[in-house]
Parts: sequence; structure tokens; C-alpha cells
Amino acid sequence: MSKVGAQLVAAFEAICRGRRSAQAFKADAGIPEEILRRILELTQSAPSSFNLQPYKLIVVQSPSQREALSSAMLGPNNIKRVREAPVTIVFCADKDPARLTRRVMQLERDSGMDPAYVSGLPAKVSFLLGRGVLSQTFRTLATHLMSPLAPAPMIAGTLDAWASKNVGLAAQTYMLAAQAHGLATAPMEGFDERRVGFLLGIPADRYSVPLVVSTGYDLDPAKTAAGDRRLPLSEVACLDAFGTPYGNPTR
Amino acid sequence: MSKVGAQLVAAFEAICRGRRSAQAFKADAGIPEEILRRILELTQSAPSSFNLQPYKLIVVQSPSQREALSSAMLGPNNIKRVREAPVTIVFCADKDPARLTRRVMQLERDSGMDPAYVSGLPAKVSFLLGRGVLSQTFRTLATHLMSPLAPAPMIAGTLDAWASKNVGLAAQTYMLAAQAHGLATAPMEGFDERRVGFLLGIPADRYSVPLVVSTGYDLDPAKTAAGDRRLPLSEVACLDAFGTPYGNPTR
Repeated sequence: MSKVGAQLVAAFEAICRGRRSAQAFKADAGIPEEILRRILELTQSAPSSFNLQPYKLIVVQSPSQREALSSAMLGPNNIKRVREAPVTIVFCADKDPARLTRRVMQLERDSGMDPAYVSGLPAKVSFLLGRGVLSQTFRTLATHLMSPLAPAPMIAGTLDAWASKNVGLAAQTYMLAAQAHGLATAPMEGFDERRVGFLLGIPADRYSVPLVVSTGYDLDPAKTAAGDRRLPLSEVACLDAFGTPYGNPTR
Repeated sequence: MSKVGAQLVAAFEAICRGRRSAQAFKADAGIPEEILRRILELTQSAPSSFNLQPYKLIVVQSPSQREALSSAMLGPNNIKRVREAPVTIVFCADKDPARLTRRVMQLERDSGMDPAYVSGLPAKVSFLLGRGVLSQTFRTLATHLMSPLAPAPMIAGTLDAWASKNVGLAAQTYMLAAQAHGLATAPMEGFDERRVGFLLGIPADRYSVPLVVSTGYDLDPAKTAAGDRRLPLSEVACLDAFGTPYGNPTR
């Protein structure tokens, strides 16, 4: 491995291993705006299905909105994190990706993508990710009929699952980018989604809120860095088929 | 920023910006086993809800299983990628996380976590993530009744959405780790999930397959690295409330 390659690996391992969910944040230690912007732009580098980028990130930063959001959190630790962290990102998953297609087609054209690919997008997206009852019924029926004959297209599960997966890809990029910049993060799903939506004006018929991530400077890094707490790789990874453990446990 | 800090940021930006979905892989350029293992172990560093790690990763590597899996992919490009990449990871999302609780409790105890936290896990997990009809009905009812009075716990959407989100966090860690090691990746959702499940023996009642990621050496990096193709940050990020664009566009 080249020297540059070894440095990349070492840096990435340090970032991954260093990222733990912070227990508490230094209150009033703000994040410089240019750093937060770089982290958000890096977040956008995450891949997404058909490049649809089906999410909104709400940067909750003002003292009044942090206080409001904290009232929708569950449990004293989560309430405290949102109240004290300088920034909490609310990740919204777009459950109606067909509505993004036109904008993304324009973006792809402007980026010089193959026109045949771009003009094929609406058909693919509306078949796979269309939201209407007719679309879903047709998709299910077609898939059931086709699958025994030939590989049939379908999206695993619901549009909410699809959108949540895409949010997961972006949210992890966000957390690692924050870690690279010396910031701590705490991803949380302990909140009342309805209240969060009401407080922040999120259209509930279109967006779900899979997670929120408080971000700032760790109040007590020693407390945060506790143990490894992961299953042995052989319990999580399989080789070539479900149920065949991958390799020998080394941990 | 310290010199070490600046190096971490530069390395992470290089990894994120460098990661693009590969169009094609060098056939028969294998991934050394120790590198793949490190990438998979880094993947496990991703956070997950209650540390449940609700996923299985199937490492499809043997020529016969690659060929079989390729037959469940949709479209000539996806078929070719799975056939030619030395490794394709099939990410399975565990839709029945309550069944993971006992094992994770043991893990947490062994890692020295607070016993009060550990003993509280089953109640939280079975209320939030229990799968039975009774559990789901009770949860929905309780949430509806409680939400107007006090923040009420609930998981956004279905267990499939919950599990897919967790897979997204892990899958992005996997892709960035592979990139750090000089490998290219191609995340795909164009496959027949039923066929994939049948071919690999995945219990369909418990696991969904949100995505698969072919991994190897890029056949034609110049072709892969095309344009930025992301929406301006101001279209994706909001400040303090939904609908208020974040900052001024810089891109």
C-alpha cells in the first residue's frame, strides 16, 4: 500500500473508532458556520437511489428552536442533549420521491449525464417509487406475476423504508464528517415524531423523521468512550449464503 | 485547527469526494482477505438503535454465488457489476429486533455498561420495536392517546423503515471504508428481492434486503468520476424550521 493510501486508512479508522454517541455537550460552545457548512456539504456526497437525494436536513440552532425541539424529546438525556448542543440536525425522509424527479433530471442534464439515462428516469422512478394506490397495486401485481418468470423490479418494503435507508446513508456521512472536524455527535430516535413535525413545520404527509443528531463539543470524552460493544464479526457477516459465518472470529 | 485535525479533515474529504458509484469492475482482481475483514469490522463501528446492530452482511464471493446473485439483478449494468466484482455485499435488515435483545444485553454487560441501562433494554425494545399485532396496536393506541398530553415514544414508520435506516448507517460506513482502502463500490437496489432471498437462503419473514454493494477495483475511474451532481445545499438544508433555506448558496 502506498504511503498516501496508508494515511487515508489510518485517518478513516481514527474517525470511525473515535465516533461514539456523546453523553453530553458543552453548552454554548458554538460551531463555526464555515465548519458546519463544510460538514453539510460533505453529507451531500452520500449516494442516494437514482441520485434523488430524498431528504431535508433541518439545522436547529437558535436558542428558541433548540428549546422547543428539546420539549419533543423523550428521556432526560435526550432533552438535555438537544438543549445544550449548539446544533441538532433533524433528518427528514422524503416519502414521495417521484416529486423530486423533475428537479433531479435538470440537475443530471446540467452535469452532463447521458441524455438517454436522464430521459429514462421518470419511468423508472414512477414505476419503482410512485406513491399512488394504482401505482402500488400495479407494482405489486406485476412483481408477483413476473418474479417467477424473470427478475422483477421492486423496492424493498415501503417508500418510508426506502427513504429511511437513504437518510441513513446521509446521516452516517454527516456524523463521520463532524467527527473528522473534531465534533461529537449523538444520534437519537427517542422523540415524539408528531411533536417534532408540528414544532418545525414538517409536512407529515410527505416526510418522516427517522433520526435527529445533536452535534457539538463533547462535555466528557472519557465518559463517552466506553468499550467496543460490537458483536463479533462472525455473528454479523456471512460468507456466500445466509447462516454461514464469515471467517473465524478474531475479536 | 491543529495539524492532525487538518489532516483528518483532508483525508475524510478525499474519501467522500472520491467515492462514486463504479460503472464497472476489474474482473478477477480479488480483494485481499485481511483488507476485506478490516473493512467489515469498520462497518460495525456504525451506530445503531439501542446498539442492536440489526443487520446481516452476506459477503458474496465465490464464483458460483456471484453468478447466481447476478441472475437476480435487474439491468445489464447491475448484472455485469455483480458478475465481475470480486465481492458483493448483500445487506439484510433485521425486522425483528426484539429477538436481538438478549444477545445485546449480554454484550452490554460484558462491556461494562451500567446495569440499570442494560436491565431497562427489554422493556424499551419490546415497547418500541415489538413485532406482534398486540404490541403494534397497543403502541399506536398509546402513542395517539399520549402525544397531545406529553411527548410519546414511537418509532417513525414501520420496523422495516427502522431496520433500513440502520442498514443505511452501516452501508455508508462500509462504502467509505472500502474507498479508504482504495476500493470502488457500487450500491444497487435494482434487484429482485425475492430471488436474492431465495438464492442466498435469507429468511424473508425476518429480513428485508435494502441494498447490495458490489466492491472491487474500478475498471475505468475516469468514467466513474463524472460531475458533482448534488443539489445546492440551500435546497436540501433548512435553518431552524422546515422551508427556511439554510444560508446562501455557495455552489
